[in-house]
Amino acid sequence: MSELEGNCLVAQSGGPTSVINASLAGVVAEALNHECIEEIYGGANGVLGILNEQLVDLASESQQTIRALRHTPGAALGTCRFKLKSQQDYDRVLQVFEAHNIRYFFYAGGNDSQDTADKISKLAQERGYDLRVIGIPKTIDNDLVTTDHTPGYGSVIKYIASTVKEIACDNAAMGQYDLVQIIEVMGRSAGWIAAGSALAKRRDEPNAAPHLIYLPEVAFSPEKFISDVQHVLQKEKYCVVVVGEGLVDADGNYVSTASAGSDAFGHSQLGGAGEYLRGLVEESLQIKARSVSLGMSQRAAAHCSSQTDNDEAYLAGQAAVKAAVAGETDKMVTLLRGDGETYTCETGLASLSEIANGVKKLPESWINEDGVSMNYNFYKYALPLIQGEVQVPYENGVPAFAKLKMVRVDRKLPAHSFE
Amino acid sequence: MSELEGNCLVAQSGGPTSVINASLAGVVAEALNHECIEEIYGGANGVLGILNEQLVDLASESQQTIRALRHTPGAALGTCRFKLKSQQDYDRVLQVFEAHNIRYFFYAGGNDSQDTADKISKLAQERGYDLRVIGIPKTIDNDLVTTDHTPGYGSVIKYIASTVKEIACDNAAMGQYDLVQIIEVMGRSAGWIAAGSALAKRRDEPNAAPHLIYLPEVAFSPEKFISDVQHVLQKEKYCVVVVGEGLVDADGNYVSTASAGSDAFGHSQLGGAGEYLRGLVEESLQIKARSVSLGMSQRAAAHCSSQTDNDEAYLAGQAAVKAAVAGETDKMVTLLRGDGETYTCETGLASLSEIANGVKKLPESWINEDGVSMNYNFYKYALPLIQGEVQVPYENGVPAFAKLKMVRVDRKLPAHSFE
Repeated sequence: MSELEGNCLVAQSGGPTSVINASLAGVVAEALNHECIEEIYGGANGVLGILNEQLVDLASESQQTIRALRHTPGAALGTCRFKLKSQQDYDRVLQVFEAHNIRYFFYAGGNDSQDTADKISKLAQERGYDLRVIGIPKTIDNDLVTTDHTPGYGSVIKYIASTVKEIACDNAAMGQYDLVQIIEVMGRSAGWIAAGSALAKRRDEPNAAPHLIYLPEVAFSPEKFISDVQHVLQKEKYCVVVVGEGLVDADGNYVSTASAGSDAFGHSQLGGAGEYLRGLVEESLQIKARSVSLGMSQRAAAHCSSQTDNDEAYLAGQAAVKAAVAGETDKMVTLLRGDGETYTCETGLASLSEIANGVKKLPESWINEDGVSMNYNFYKYALPLIQGEVQVPYENGVPAFAKLKMVRVDRKLPAHSFE
Repeated sequence: MSELEGNCLVAQSGGPTSVINASLAGVVAEALNHECIEEIYGGANGVLGILNEQLVDLASESQQTIRALRHTPGAALGTCRFKLKSQQDYDRVLQVFEAHNIRYFFYAGGNDSQDTADKISKLAQERGYDLRVIGIPKTIDNDLVTTDHTPGYGSVIKYIASTVKEIACDNAAMGQYDLVQIIEVMGRSAGWIAAGSALAKRRDEPNAAPHLIYLPEVAFSPEKFISDVQHVLQKEKYCVVVVGEGLVDADGNYVSTASAGSDAFGHSQLGGAGEYLRGLVEESLQIKARSVSLGMSQRAAAHCSSQTDNDEAYLAGQAAVKAAVAGETDKMVTLLRGDGETYTCETGLASLSEIANGVKKLPESWINEDGVSMNYNFYKYALPLIQGEVQVPYENGVPAFAKLKMVRVDRKLPAHSFE
């Protein structure tokens, strides 16, 4: 494969994770190793910034800043949920790439973002513009196919399992007053995150918290829920419940209107799945329940993130650059787990189109028959992903994070007209 | 002062903090130093366990367990919100003390618990039963008088400030989609905890998150709130709001019914102050807002607790024992801040009755004129309290906590009959 000389562009897309910036650091660090890559640009706010020709010079950032990115939550370049809509949008991306001689494009994101990357890649090929496009997996949702798991997942479940374990200590002490504790976690369409809360207890501690886990994969029945809670309270003096925000009933409808979406406004929307379950307990059993909604804190919790996850996110960034330099394009970096008893992980590649069109579901065979706990297969899968603690530096008592200077690259094109 | 020989009893009361067990460890470790203290007993579930003669032998716990208590959240002995009601209850406490030759009683808790300790102490004096009673301050609410601050407060605000800073990174990246982020924190009657979120930013970063802090001390006006949010969004691309759960309007009524209490049941109660503010933003401004309710996680977050707070909690436990052995009684340990520029803290003593009848309010002069941010005086007060990070050991990827064996001391009395 002939060496392709030019500039590289890296951008971030979709909801942040606590390790998406570790992937960014991996891209920048690796790009420095390759002379064929001249400038290292970042796109502000994902593909939206590319359309707006908002490029920043990442090579001008200090090594300290790039290092500090490894433990900085959020998406340091900014991100977006924007989908390229028209042919005009796609053409514009290529125009910006041509204007800045972008020959390497790295896009960190989930399914939609990989789909965008795929379409940009195919258009470049069609137009004969020499461009190498490599996607970097990123999502706390862990729902990308072809990869064993996604960077971001290990950290979100490490934080949730740790938090559930801590809250359970409180409930154990206060059990007689706050009998039922509901903890709502993210996961609109799959239970990967809620399932991860199981790691708060060892498999040989079946009676420890979380006592009940409600997953979007299992149709919710209020009657069974109340009976489950009663069953736990017959044996234990408190009951810790974890619920995925995307809990649905037998007809596939979200159990709480607040989970249904974000377009309607008003009080009727208040309270998500957690508050709904709290209401059910208080109404049906006339006992005190509390609920916690961790919201954004779970995907931003760098201070309680997984070193394994962080290392793999960094590795994925590096691997993206290596693959592109080696001539690969239209691929996403994947994480491949070794076959041995000891957990190992290396990177691979899969075609972008394959990822864009698939959704990896939580295997139903990993859920126990009771529908509210996880079995050996899930533990075997998830436990290695939360090992190791990222040591975030503290300054003035709070975590210290990187902030990019965001030195703008001069614009060369007129403004884009959005349709 | 003559040496008093006998057994000691330590118990925990009220809502746990992430350092209440550090005080317990301090009591046990210090008690071992004094030969006049024979047995070291713990009371299960606070004063309720004393009534029920549920005493456990703490001297039989391993040194490892006592050490691990220092970073274990919850209340390892169990706790209660029970108030002694009748003369019969008080008499029973003394009977149990006599039966087990308890001569030293240490009670870790807030105002109500110190009041209970005071009454037990006075009854013992009245009956001529030689007993030394020392209270240990404990509350995330930081509302005890006579002490500069309370063990538990530094850790809860360290966790909240850290979490706010992390969430702000996410919002900075996603600002264009989730414009307003509401973070509800504890504090039913005072804004000490909400105010602590200010530490997420340095005082020279006025435009950083949290942008707006709503305290129970400042009467809430929906109109001003919406105007505040609009003002922030004119300057920043996102707005992070922290709200204390006990927010009240100009008439002193809680803004959300869910904050009002726990006795009523049903859906009308769903959603606290945070959800209420989210609804206001979405209704009034027709923009997307999100809310997080940290709930119990904030007072259980040992993994992000303050070393300063932890050290002081331990010190308070030790000081309680030292004071009692030296002949003091009917006192609570206080934390006294040194006058120098560099933060120092030593312990003192105050009379229990003084604490039981007072509530320390957040000084209004520490709130800026805008009513939504804290000034230099608050920073000077609070910043030292969150310094240092407790290193919690991890096992299998989650924090490892102590669990007491809870070896029961044989009962010597018939069961107590509650009225």
